[in-house]
Amino acid sequence: MKRLSELQIIDLISKALAISKKRTIWNDDVATIPLANKLLVFKCDMLVQSTDAPRQMRLWQIARKSVVSSLSDFACKGVKPLATLVSLAIPKDFTGKDIAELADGFKIAEKEFDVNIIGGDTNEGKELVIDCCMVGLSDHIVKRSGAKNGDLIVTSGPFGYSASGLKILTKRARARAGFKDKAVKTVLMPKPRLRFGLLLAKYATSSMDSSDGLAITLHELSIRSKKRFVLDELPTKDEVKEFAKRNRYDFNELVLHGGEEYEIVATIPKRHLKKVRSLAREAGCRLFVIGMVERGKGVFMLEKGKRIKIEKRGWEHLART
Amino acid sequence: MKRLSELQIIDLISKALAISKKRTIWNDDVATIPLANKLLVFKCDMLVQSTDAPRQMRLWQIARKSVVSSLSDFACKGVKPLATLVSLAIPKDFTGKDIAELADGFKIAEKEFDVNIIGGDTNEGKELVIDCCMVGLSDHIVKRSGAKNGDLIVTSGPFGYSASGLKILTKRARARAGFKDKAVKTVLMPKPRLRFGLLLAKYATSSMDSSDGLAITLHELSIRSKKRFVLDELPTKDEVKEFAKRNRYDFNELVLHGGEEYEIVATIPKRHLKKVRSLAREAGCRLFVIGMVERGKGVFMLEKGKRIKIEKRGWEHLART
Repeated sequence: MKRLSELQIIDLISKALAISKKRTIWNDDVATIPLANKLLVFKCDMLVQSTDAPRQMRLWQIARKSVVSSLSDFACKGVKPLATLVSLAIPKDFTGKDIAELADGFKIAEKEFDVNIIGGDTNEGKELVIDCCMVGLSDHIVKRSGAKNGDLIVTSGPFGYSASGLKILTKRARARAGFKDKAVKTVLMPKPRLRFGLLLAKYATSSMDSSDGLAITLHELSIRSKKRFVLDELPTKDEVKEFAKRNRYDFNELVLHGGEEYEIVATIPKRHLKKVRSLAREAGCRLFVIGMVERGKGVFMLEKGKRIKIEKRGWEHLART
Repeated sequence: MKRLSELQIIDLISKALAISKKRTIWNDDVATIPLANKLLVFKCDMLVQSTDAPRQMRLWQIARKSVVSSLSDFACKGVKPLATLVSLAIPKDFTGKDIAELADGFKIAEKEFDVNIIGGDTNEGKELVIDCCMVGLSDHIVKRSGAKNGDLIVTSGPFGYSASGLKILTKRARARAGFKDKAVKTVLMPKPRLRFGLLLAKYATSSMDSSDGLAITLHELSIRSKKRFVLDELPTKDEVKEFAKRNRYDFNELVLHGGEEYEIVATIPKRHLKKVRSLAREAGCRLFVIGMVERGKGVFMLEKGKRIKIEKRGWEHLART
């Protein structure tokens, strides 16, 4: 029997559940429920140790990361979570020290991201699993579907560092000390862009969290908005290119299909660029303007005047690398 | 290093998280957040296949059960969930048929319990894990802490069937055909008491879901309410006693320390008994009146005029049986 990809599994389950009632399901970064004149925003993100955490990741970092994933989805929708729950499956050989370290990670996340973990559920399991669930309330969310012709495509930071970091951690790829530290830190201590996401919400026409990879994020925004996305540059830095060259990795692969970036990819009307750039600075991130939205479909890269198709291909998690 | 019990783990994590801010955490069936003049009610319940599902449980039944657990917590608080998310860790050898069966189980749960699964998260893991998260809105919840002197202690149904069913499924215990079917069904197809819980909310002074076992539930209500709970009978039936005798099991053990019952244990003022009894009938369950709340502490059983202490001991999940 053929192995199913994650997308096929999502498709099967969401199709089955959508049969009974017409509704949107599994189709934006967060789920929403109309509540009086507001939206209740609801999201779970599950972290599985064997597939989501390289072995160098400490337990407290795993706990922290489980919060980052959900928070990043709230961030790109422009919503601050009200409350957080964490459900845990804990292997039976975990010691009191291990549990205390996990708890530390949650405490660090609470403080670093100003979130409130108000409850949860603990269980015994074969491996560490953390499901982090958040709920929030908002007047509106920035959808994946609102990109307009002429909008600029922007990202809240550079891509390629997390894929590089993972290669350094799991494939012993070589790197300059400065780059190594930065890339590894991106993997072990990912940063969600909550502050920027909240500021951006007023200006963005569409937005999405990029943790499944830049290419798949751009494709998703393009499909949902029914527009063509054309890039003229990649949101990255020379040191990523240098790292790729040194290790004979495909540079585009690292940047476009790496994943686990937790950056916001959004579209904004041109007239807001200056404002959005200053908001990014205010929020401590660097804005990359990487292309434009057009009538049509597909995601393309402009290279020497030619349009090259960008493949719709996501990130393959640890177990498959 | 000594193995930690689930309660110790909960204690460690909740203590660590509660250090930073004064707040209630992990201390009722659901978490709540004040929202204007309402309460946002929020709950996750994680099901782990190796510890929560006997091998006879079909995949669709596991998916259904994952919804039952969270729903039962909402039920005993008197709150109807607004929306549900399911996070899944799926083993890589699951086939399309397996996934379709899981999806079927969610569909069945949606229809049977009138819940809306509006999204979720899928992942690959070493074993099947389902975290079911629900959110709701309510004017108030029935807390664990409200029992008053003179209140009656009631349950929404009999106890001992699920522990018996588990013994039949995992220990080949012998049973009459009729009892066997009923007990096994209690394990494979548990029923949350949502309808009764919603009706009861107006009359109950305290309430709790009993899935960790009757004894621990009574102790928890007693501790939170700062009252003594005195039982004069157990909420069960003769056929459970007969089953215990036939297999030389401790009858009290089956009824008090079995767990996985998903019945509501509540306290009500005496004057509401007639009304609550008729509401139970309306909701299709049988009310058991098992004792009374007194000044003092501890949980006791009246036997031949003597008060015997009921141990505070919960259910040990499958992996430990």
